[in-house]
Amino acid sequence: MSESILLLHPGEMGASIGAALRASGHAVRWVSESRSDETRRRAAAADLASIETLESALTCVENVISVCPPGAAVDVARSVHDSGFRGVYVDANAVSPATSRRIADIVGDGFVDGGIIGPPARRPGATRLYLSGDLAYQVASWFEGTLVDARTVDCSASALKMCYAAYTKGSSALVLAIRALATSQGVEDALLSEWNISQPGLVARSDAAARGTSPKAWRFEGEMREIAATFSEAGLPSGFHEAASDIYRGMRELKSVKDADIERVVAILLASGK
Amino acid sequence: MSESILLLHPGEMGASIGAALRASGHAVRWVSESRSDETRRRAAAADLASIETLESALTCVENVISVCPPGAAVDVARSVHDSGFRGVYVDANAVSPATSRRIADIVGDGFVDGGIIGPPARRPGATRLYLSGDLAYQVASWFEGTLVDARTVDCSASALKMCYAAYTKGSSALVLAIRALATSQGVEDALLSEWNISQPGLVARSDAAARGTSPKAWRFEGEMREIAATFSEAGLPSGFHEAASDIYRGMRELKSVKDADIERVVAILLASGK
Repeated sequence: MSESILLLHPGEMGASIGAALRASGHAVRWVSESRSDETRRRAAAADLASIETLESALTCVENVISVCPPGAAVDVARSVHDSGFRGVYVDANAVSPATSRRIADIVGDGFVDGGIIGPPARRPGATRLYLSGDLAYQVASWFEGTLVDARTVDCSASALKMCYAAYTKGSSALVLAIRALATSQGVEDALLSEWNISQPGLVARSDAAARGTSPKAWRFEGEMREIAATFSEAGLPSGFHEAASDIYRGMRELKSVKDADIERVVAILLASGK
Repeated sequence: MSESILLLHPGEMGASIGAALRASGHAVRWVSESRSDETRRRAAAADLASIETLESALTCVENVISVCPPGAAVDVARSVHDSGFRGVYVDANAVSPATSRRIADIVGDGFVDGGIIGPPARRPGATRLYLSGDLAYQVASWFEGTLVDARTVDCSASALKMCYAAYTKGSSALVLAIRALATSQGVEDALLSEWNISQPGLVARSDAAARGTSPKAWRFEGEMREIAATFSEAGLPSGFHEAASDIYRGMRELKSVKDADIERVVAILLASGK
């Protein structure tokens, strides 16, 4: 059955989710007001129908999916609810269980908790959308046969996403911080030699972390804060991800730098720390 | 040439260093006053000569090696200097460059900075003793042909050790904290399933981190604080290792528990956080 879905917003990940829904025959719209040319290009490539304002878009859809930076997730939910929307609302963002509960309180009965693990959906088997709550099965069915592997779980999808990103993005930030420390202490050559003896793959992993996270660091900062809050609420140390948030904040300006390597990241981190 | 060396103290690591020195013909002593039966047993097994007090021991050696928990390193150096010793003093402990400089100031001209990487030296190629400073070559020569691979570096051996342990022990603490968080949030099964899809080896790594760090966590707490101080002095985030210090402090009581597994570690971390 074809659904009418509003996708907020077609960033790299959101556009790939929208394209998956389009490919399985759903009507997918997006709101073009105040969005960049880059976003317009991505939405067009994903074959999403443009509508100028949120208010008009909400009059012609029964479902909304929110895919946005974690710091914007509550505002997006509120603006949708304040516009009178009472349909199915999927929050697929990297937010803490507490933030997810806030969004659920705003949205009401139509709320579905989601968490995306993996890269933008461009090949089979790489991107999973975890969904939890009463309407999770219904939302999962939209993605049948698409590049998005939608899976319902009987636990909190947001908490699952927090725990998952806690390791991937937390350990990347840790290894970048250590490379910066080694440079600042003049022990970089000795450290890399020792890693090559006893931590095989770690030099390459730190190089890959620099290239892989640099374009995305600007939005990891908020995600790390959501994870830190999740640890804190559970009575566990929040420092790993407060530090990771600091590292990614230091790297914000690399968003527009093409192919920033480890030397560039180290230089930025050492400069931002002074 | 045979050297006369005082080893302070024969813990697991220290005893293996002492045994290596004995095996290459050096006279190695240790101070038995106030030490446990366990330490006596290890020292005897390593063929070290027992002397009752520090003062008497220092009258018959030209060299001292300090291998002790990082929180004790300054006190050990001070007690040796206060006893009038003016020979070669190797601090082989996991301390920050700042703590190492404090020890250098106490000890004077005979100071050699060291950092041990790897397990206690029981097989070839696994344990490296990095050494820096004017007397580093002289100290390295004591270990020729032994199970300890002594290497001189033209950078700070302490800083190298900090950077190295920052990853190994920091990432182990991170993964243990995440396992505890997942349990507290009821998402453990879902997380482990996802790790098995997209992070091969990580489930096993977290299980191994529990078993591997539990008996040693009591002394990692102080080492993580030294690392946090190293980051802080460099203008980099200290939170990763403050959090790691909290995790290992929570695990202190596992010192005497045989083969503590991940369930045991998670239960302890969740109980200590409340």
